Amino acid sequence: MTADLLLGVDVGGTGAKYVVADLAGAVRAEGDVPTDPASPETTLGRVARATGPVLDGGRLHGVGLACAGIVNPLTGWLGRSPNLPGWEDSNLFAAVDAVFGNVRRALANDVNGALYGEFRAGAGRGCADLVMIALGTGVGGGVLLGGELLVGTHFGAGEIGHMVMDPHGPVCTCGGRGCLEAYAGSVGLLRAAREAAAGDAGPGLRDLVAARGVALTTRDLARLAVAGDEDAAGIFTLAGRRLGQAVGNLINVLDPDRILIGGGVAQAGDLIFEPCRRTARAIVLAAEAKDTPILPAELGPLAAAVGAALLVTGEASGE
Amino acid sequence: MTADLLLGVDVGGTGAKYVVADLAGAVRAEGDVPTDPASPETTLGRVARATGPVLDGGRLHGVGLACAGIVNPLTGWLGRSPNLPGWEDSNLFAAVDAVFGNVRRALANDVNGALYGEFRAGAGRGCADLVMIALGTGVGGGVLLGGELLVGTHFGAGEIGHMVMDPHGPVCTCGGRGCLEAYAGSVGLLRAAREAAAGDAGPGLRDLVAARGVALTTRDLARLAVAGDEDAAGIFTLAGRRLGQAVGNLINVLDPDRILIGGGVAQAGDLIFEPCRRTARAIVLAAEAKDTPILPAELGPLAAAVGAALLVTGEASGE
Repeated sequence: MTADLLLGVDVGGTGAKYVVADLAGAVRAEGDVPTDPASPETTLGRVARATGPVLDGGRLHGVGLACAGIVNPLTGWLGRSPNLPGWEDSNLFAAVDAVFGNVRRALANDVNGALYGEFRAGAGRGCADLVMIALGTGVGGGVLLGGELLVGTHFGAGEIGHMVMDPHGPVCTCGGRGCLEAYAGSVGLLRAAREAAAGDAGPGLRDLVAARGVALTTRDLARLAVAGDEDAAGIFTLAGRRLGQAVGNLINVLDPDRILIGGGVAQAGDLIFEPCRRTARAIVLAAEAKDTPILPAELGPLAAAVGAALLVTGEASGE
Repeated sequence: MTADLLLGVDVGGTGAKYVVADLAGAVRAEGDVPTDPASPETTLGRVARATGPVLDGGRLHGVGLACAGIVNPLTGWLGRSPNLPGWEDSNLFAAVDAVFGNVRRALANDVNGALYGEFRAGAGRGCADLVMIALGTGVGGGVLLGGELLVGTHFGAGEIGHMVMDPHGPVCTCGGRGCLEAYAGSVGLLRAAREAAAGDAGPGLRDLVAARGVALTTRDLARLAVAGDEDAAGIFTLAGRRLGQAVGNLINVLDPDRILIGGGVAQAGDLIFEPCRRTARAIVLAAEAKDTPILPAELGPLAAAVGAALLVTGEASGE
């Protein structure tokens, strides 16, 4: 048999999502295993056992890993990693070798993995210059130029969530003020909702916040906004405007083919995309770049695993 | 004789600065001629006559041009150009061919030309990943990654001056609010000085603004600030903080080797560099990137002409 399958693993603090994909990124199998917080080898061993039947007979072409944190994609080194402190400062290519033997390997941080997946098999297909912004608990980002992920001199590129949008803005988890993350990550959105409920919001938002308590989610807020509650809608509008400011600033600097917005908060759809697009368009200076598409990511929660798998093939191509 | 000399021309609205440089960028001759607002050929003909004695005997290896505006460096096309409306939508390589015959050619916008000059022969020497911010009347910018200038999908990259730093900030010449240019370009600085003089500033700034009238320059302001005037110093401090916010945001996104600050306003030195560095350092998230050098450009007013000349050699190298 030929080695025609890729394994991609998106390693989180508690679980590792994996996909087995063909060389074009089509997913043949997927699943997850518990992450061993102390051992990359143990975690990858669990993935190997789970995927063994699919990969039987020498079909494994290579293994790609995605991890939050500072990574060196050339050497396989994982530096600081907030979700995987027990894996920090270790070589993940060595762990792949120990578990899978002599296969090709790739490593990216999680948002870069997702961006590469979108580039090769999702909303960025056919575009060599892309920016991705992932709206989750926090806000992550990635930049792809000429079909290659930008990693930066210190492997620190893509921290789009900590671009400061307003020096007088709300305090961010990083200690700064007015970061994009403080507006458009779920922590920031939920804090804004609670502050509004404690302040001058109407009964709709006040009742929701009281009823849901610590279980409040951005999905709850979005449902209320879609039902016509102006306080809830206003929270997404402000987040969308600050996101649009970041997007407009990035188009002014990089003039990419497209901007992709992913992550759970992006599920709010037009509540956040509409003010985002309007604000970005007003900020972009070059007339030719004003209509740069700002699109939802397509691959969903598997994006980083798919992208990590495709990074193994290392083709700087839009196909 | 061998073709061992480069000609670089930085074309402005009224004059065209030229340099004759060797293949490493060392300037052998320099000067300027009046720009013909309607004809690239006439303008380049004047440069050819002025440089003829130096370039005599077939020593011209190639010609590089720098122009403000939207340019396609591959085809030589000049699109919108605020300073050269009579040159818009024309092919400047054809003009070079008509005047200089069969030589190599290059084209960049003015800030990209200056950035490339600093990369090959100035403050960015040896660094493949650079961001340049030029503080002039307005604020321009450029990005170099992997030794290549980023031009963007619509040739619109590098508009760093129109990154929005504060959505509630002062109105910019572009019609937007809170752009970097509105703080750190000389138009923004001088407006801030006049507003302070009309407001609660002390007699030092009030007297300067009254005495200099429309002839007021940022150099006047800097002299007053260096002499100890707190109102004048405060204007540079705010500009430096917003510049530092832009720099910090750019380091978070791109993680380059160095940030270079050029243009006339940068002559204010520590008045603007000190608050810039302090603010940027606070914003940069990755610990490894916090000490990214933020340096004055070195090549001064000839940077764009030198860079345009060196672009002819097309070597993506730090040497």
